[in-house]
Amino acid sequence: MSAVAEPVAAAAQQQMADALRFLAIDGVEAAKSGHPGMPLGMAEIAVALWDRHLKHNPHNPAWPDRDRFVLSNGHGSMLLYALLHLTGYDLPVDELKRFRQLHAKTPGHPEVGVTPGVETTTGPLGQGLANAVGMALAEALLAREFNRPGHAIVDHRTYVFVGDGCLMEGISHEAASLAGTLRLDKLVVLYDDNGISIDGHVVQWFADDTPARFAAYGWHVVRDVDGHDIDAVDDALNEAKKAGRPTLICCKTLIGKGSPSKAGTHDVHGAPLGAEEVAATRRALGWPHAPFEVPDDLRARWNARMRGEAAEAEWRRRFESYRQHYPNEAAEFERRMRGELPAQWRDAVRAMLRDTDSAAQTVATRKASQQTIAMLARVLPELLGGSADLTGSNLTDWKGAVDVRIEANGPSAELKGGNYIHYGVREFGMSAVMNGIALHRGYLPFGGTFLTFSDYARNALRMAALMKTRTVFVFTHDSVGLGEDGPTHQPVEHAASLRLIPGLDVWRPCDTVETAQAWASAVEREGPSCLLLSRQNVPFVSRSAQQIEAIARGGYVLRDWSLPSTAQRVVLIATGSEVTLALDAAAQLTDAGVAVRVVSMPSTTVFDREPAAWRDAVLPPGVPRVAVEAGVRAFWRQYVGLDGGVVGIDSFGESAPAAALFAHFNLTAQAVADEARRVVHVAR
Amino acid sequence: MSAVAEPVAAAAQQQMADALRFLAIDGVEAAKSGHPGMPLGMAEIAVALWDRHLKHNPHNPAWPDRDRFVLSNGHGSMLLYALLHLTGYDLPVDELKRFRQLHAKTPGHPEVGVTPGVETTTGPLGQGLANAVGMALAEALLAREFNRPGHAIVDHRTYVFVGDGCLMEGISHEAASLAGTLRLDKLVVLYDDNGISIDGHVVQWFADDTPARFAAYGWHVVRDVDGHDIDAVDDALNEAKKAGRPTLICCKTLIGKGSPSKAGTHDVHGAPLGAEEVAATRRALGWPHAPFEVPDDLRARWNARMRGEAAEAEWRRRFESYRQHYPNEAAEFERRMRGELPAQWRDAVRAMLRDTDSAAQTVATRKASQQTIAMLARVLPELLGGSADLTGSNLTDWKGAVDVRIEANGPSAELKGGNYIHYGVREFGMSAVMNGIALHRGYLPFGGTFLTFSDYARNALRMAALMKTRTVFVFTHDSVGLGEDGPTHQPVEHAASLRLIPGLDVWRPCDTVETAQAWASAVEREGPSCLLLSRQNVPFVSRSAQQIEAIARGGYVLRDWSLPSTAQRVVLIATGSEVTLALDAAAQLTDAGVAVRVVSMPSTTVFDREPAAWRDAVLPPGVPRVAVEAGVRAFWRQYVGLDGGVVGIDSFGESAPAAALFAHFNLTAQAVADEARRVVHVAR
Repeated sequence: MSAVAEPVAAAAQQQMADALRFLAIDGVEAAKSGHPGMPLGMAEIAVALWDRHLKHNPHNPAWPDRDRFVLSNGHGSMLLYALLHLTGYDLPVDELKRFRQLHAKTPGHPEVGVTPGVETTTGPLGQGLANAVGMALAEALLAREFNRPGHAIVDHRTYVFVGDGCLMEGISHEAASLAGTLRLDKLVVLYDDNGISIDGHVVQWFADDTPARFAAYGWHVVRDVDGHDIDAVDDALNEAKKAGRPTLICCKTLIGKGSPSKAGTHDVHGAPLGAEEVAATRRALGWPHAPFEVPDDLRARWNARMRGEAAEAEWRRRFESYRQHYPNEAAEFERRMRGELPAQWRDAVRAMLRDTDSAAQTVATRKASQQTIAMLARVLPELLGGSADLTGSNLTDWKGAVDVRIEANGPSAELKGGNYIHYGVREFGMSAVMNGIALHRGYLPFGGTFLTFSDYARNALRMAALMKTRTVFVFTHDSVGLGEDGPTHQPVEHAASLRLIPGLDVWRPCDTVETAQAWASAVEREGPSCLLLSRQNVPFVSRSAQQIEAIARGGYVLRDWSLPSTAQRVVLIATGSEVTLALDAAAQLTDAGVAVRVVSMPSTTVFDREPAAWRDAVLPPGVPRVAVEAGVRAFWRQYVGLDGGVVGIDSFGESAPAAALFAHFNLTAQAVADEARRVVHVAR
Repeated sequence: MSAVAEPVAAAAQQQMADALRFLAIDGVEAAKSGHPGMPLGMAEIAVALWDRHLKHNPHNPAWPDRDRFVLSNGHGSMLLYALLHLTGYDLPVDELKRFRQLHAKTPGHPEVGVTPGVETTTGPLGQGLANAVGMALAEALLAREFNRPGHAIVDHRTYVFVGDGCLMEGISHEAASLAGTLRLDKLVVLYDDNGISIDGHVVQWFADDTPARFAAYGWHVVRDVDGHDIDAVDDALNEAKKAGRPTLICCKTLIGKGSPSKAGTHDVHGAPLGAEEVAATRRALGWPHAPFEVPDDLRARWNARMRGEAAEAEWRRRFESYRQHYPNEAAEFERRMRGELPAQWRDAVRAMLRDTDSAAQTVATRKASQQTIAMLARVLPELLGGSADLTGSNLTDWKGAVDVRIEANGPSAELKGGNYIHYGVREFGMSAVMNGIALHRGYLPFGGTFLTFSDYARNALRMAALMKTRTVFVFTHDSVGLGEDGPTHQPVEHAASLRLIPGLDVWRPCDTVETAQAWASAVEREGPSCLLLSRQNVPFVSRSAQQIEAIARGGYVLRDWSLPSTAQRVVLIATGSEVTLALDAAAQLTDAGVAVRVVSMPSTTVFDREPAAWRDAVLPPGVPRVAVEAGVRAFWRQYVGLDGGVVGIDSFGESAPAAALFAHFNLTAQAVADEARRVVHVAR
């Protein structure tokens, strides 16, 4: 398509871009806060993609086969809000006027669940790109699982906007390398190459040959596209569709384009233009309209509702044909895209808990987790496992796991579907990719690494909690109990610090049965969960049926005093591998005439949400308490108070066999018993 | 040099490599734990580097002008221990026999400060490479600062071993991109390209064209080097010295080379070979010696003490000549390489605190920090600032800051020295680079980002704490008080979770004077500190001279009750921007007849190390307490107990102006006063 051949159309398209520009300018101006530079710089790119390529239905943002759009440079949120507003999503102009105000649908950075049409929450740079890789991967795997000859019910693309910031972040390497290796050919990234970041001209701190870098990842790269030439971007998008690989479209742009005195400078990145410059921009671009005003003809041109309805209707016809031929697959597809658990789920969990209890195995909880996964996989085909190159240590694979892999196919290569992803040594990338998979829907992703390396992924865990994605993070080697690898590998503060992330559930089960329940709770939850699992064996604990049921409440009474109520009393609280220390200490103390209750607390985050009646029943107010966990002690003060006791580790670990370490750090039943005697004595 | 021309020498060199192999095998075998694959695969590379290139003096691991060697693939620690042992460091064979045992000098992963000759602690993959970039950057900047024509007293290289794991990690992108941009020509990375990672053949999850990727960063790349050909590696190292850019040497290797049945498989990565395979390896390589035995002639060939002593002596002669010509510079260089503060330091701090107090400014603490930096820079030329592309927000620059930059110089480009680094949007890379700078010595690095994005850097903060590096992390925008950017940018759990990292000091000052003291404490500390700073203005608080002195203790009494001791009493504890809420609440409560003490707690980590007498004097036992901080509440239970009160935020933030948010989250003086009345009532 040539812009010269259709001057009228070209002018109209330019006006569409300017409509985006001024909504962004006006939104930022009204908020007196925000980022105009990116929307002004990417307006034409947005027109090319949203008006000519993006398959979506503003009337139904949940249409399963829509294209996904991710604004990885999320500070340009006003561009996305302008697009959603103009194409016909439920985002009235009043919401644009309330940009960045409390409870508006237009928060400072895009938030999934807040604004219809926003696919993921972005702002922390680079993660949107990784989310998009997850979405593209979910699409590719779903297509291989559900499509049938002549029935391509899963067939959509994932488009991403990225800026220099995203591409400087390390996670861009992890995500792009994985996407290239897996040949995610429906992933298209549009790079806003404006040469400016907050500190100024990037050449002084970011001199990469980015096209060459992405080519090295096996991507198709479209170089030197004029990002202000809608037709050129359109051509590049057409080229991407034929590339057979993920595509990076490098768009040369001018940050803040349109602003006469601020374009091309970092001043325009993150602050309002100011009334004077706004007026100058209106004059320069010939935009006579009042703030937030877009002429009706331009609104009509932007509106994508009819087109979207038609596109979805066409897909629904095809889906009904699929349903006729493959009724079971169609029902299963719909269930999974709704994120519903299968009908037999509860029965399966009950059976699993019963069988696990009967087996009474003494194994590491990472091993218990592996056995649980195998049982769950029988009823949950949506389980999509993986590990950041620690499969044999995390025990995240199972019989029936099929590696997602690339198969050479002549000169080309082909992605083979499966349910297990070797993420490589990419903890942060893995976690953000899993978030993207969960957001796409269709799979329930889980992935493993060592607990210490949750640090590498931490902001993705936070984003999962903020977005409430159903993502399961399997963290094994959960204490100094991992032994010889030493302090770099031994978590000490991690269990506590993960529990501080709002909305993140953290489980540290003590044996096979608690591990099974932790998994069941994680699967059922509308939000992320971390499973902290031991490398070393932990003894099986016998429980009553009520106790097994109580595990799901996060904390419960595992053993209770049998001594007369006149005895001195103490409650021992423990998690994971330290529950056995508490039980051993209880035996000592009981022999010495102290009445002891042992509370197993596999999940403080779950326990904290229980009603006060349950919490007080488990931890009777006034009875002295001692907590034991192989981690920092301060965390436990909220349960034991200033007068209680905590047995833990406040320093880094050491390199030595596990048994030597538990002795060295005084993590013993004797230490727990001593601490219990101390607090009982103080309380007397 | 041709191996064919000198068959005897070649055989001897091969034996040197095999000596490394068997010490590694025997160490792992004795420990029944460890990673033989990498030492066996990199033995020849180690010979080429350590025997033919590395400038070091085993007798003095602290020689300032030694080459730095970093084992970024730290799981191969036995290779490094074997090298240190054989070249003559204070690491007797008994320590090798105690590999991975409690308190041995040979922990599972190399730890700086534990083993002489270990330059940085590695294990968490990719960070060693980033540390090395920091070391090379420190060298380059020191050379530009101290060298004079004819007097190159700073002139050494930084060598790094990396594996596939390091190169998959995102931080490798951040570090390599920065190193390429800054043309760190004395950085040489040797890549152990064995095609195997823990999960198996990497091609299924890591199909990068790594040489092309590094070329895209502006590196010189030596491709297709046979990593088992010592001469070929030697040639590549010679080539690197002339490259004028950082160099990546891609060595094709066989993991576990020498092990007849395990070489080339992932089984050899992280587990002992087993007695049978060890014997087979001895036979295959013709190594008849007993475990840990190395023939004397081979020991003599490896020993680098004489060569090292001579090299250092030669440097010392040159340094003495430098001293004659530039006595002040020589003294300053020695001071800085010792990590000592200047003689006028204490006076300068006293003057700074006095001036800051007199100025009585109401500014944001990030602004107070900037003013402090400017004052400190006058007496601390070693200050080396920077930001992860948020200079104007973090306010990490100052008048007198000179950007480290690249200047075009004909077809080539040249690094210009300075004291401010634009790290780009690379929080993790920045932090690990700063750790490397601190380990190198000569500079005191600090760098800024938003507090939320401390998540991205978290494991580097942990490593700083483990290594006790003097690194200062400046984290601004420290609460919902940052306003409209919303929950992705608003820290809630971060202050608390950073305080849980053992050995990391965390400061959250409430005004200009506390900010100045926080900086002074961070500079004086032998270990890392985080400064959590507000975006918004905070009122100046007047203090007595004793109170100003008490800030350094982390927590102190800011206002004390003037009401009779018979009154109901309460202690309010606050940090940072919430101190003003506590003061306002105190006014309300005092008016209502409650005796109130306000404790400012800028650093809980420092306060916790104070003697109990101080802590009890500040927080008198038995008096009810209320803590207020714009963050998760659970953390504060360790100070207020179960019966105390906490005013905070347990959910994610929102996008809105700061004032609206403080009201929305009920972070008000009224809320603090209400909570105080509640706990006073309960305690009655």
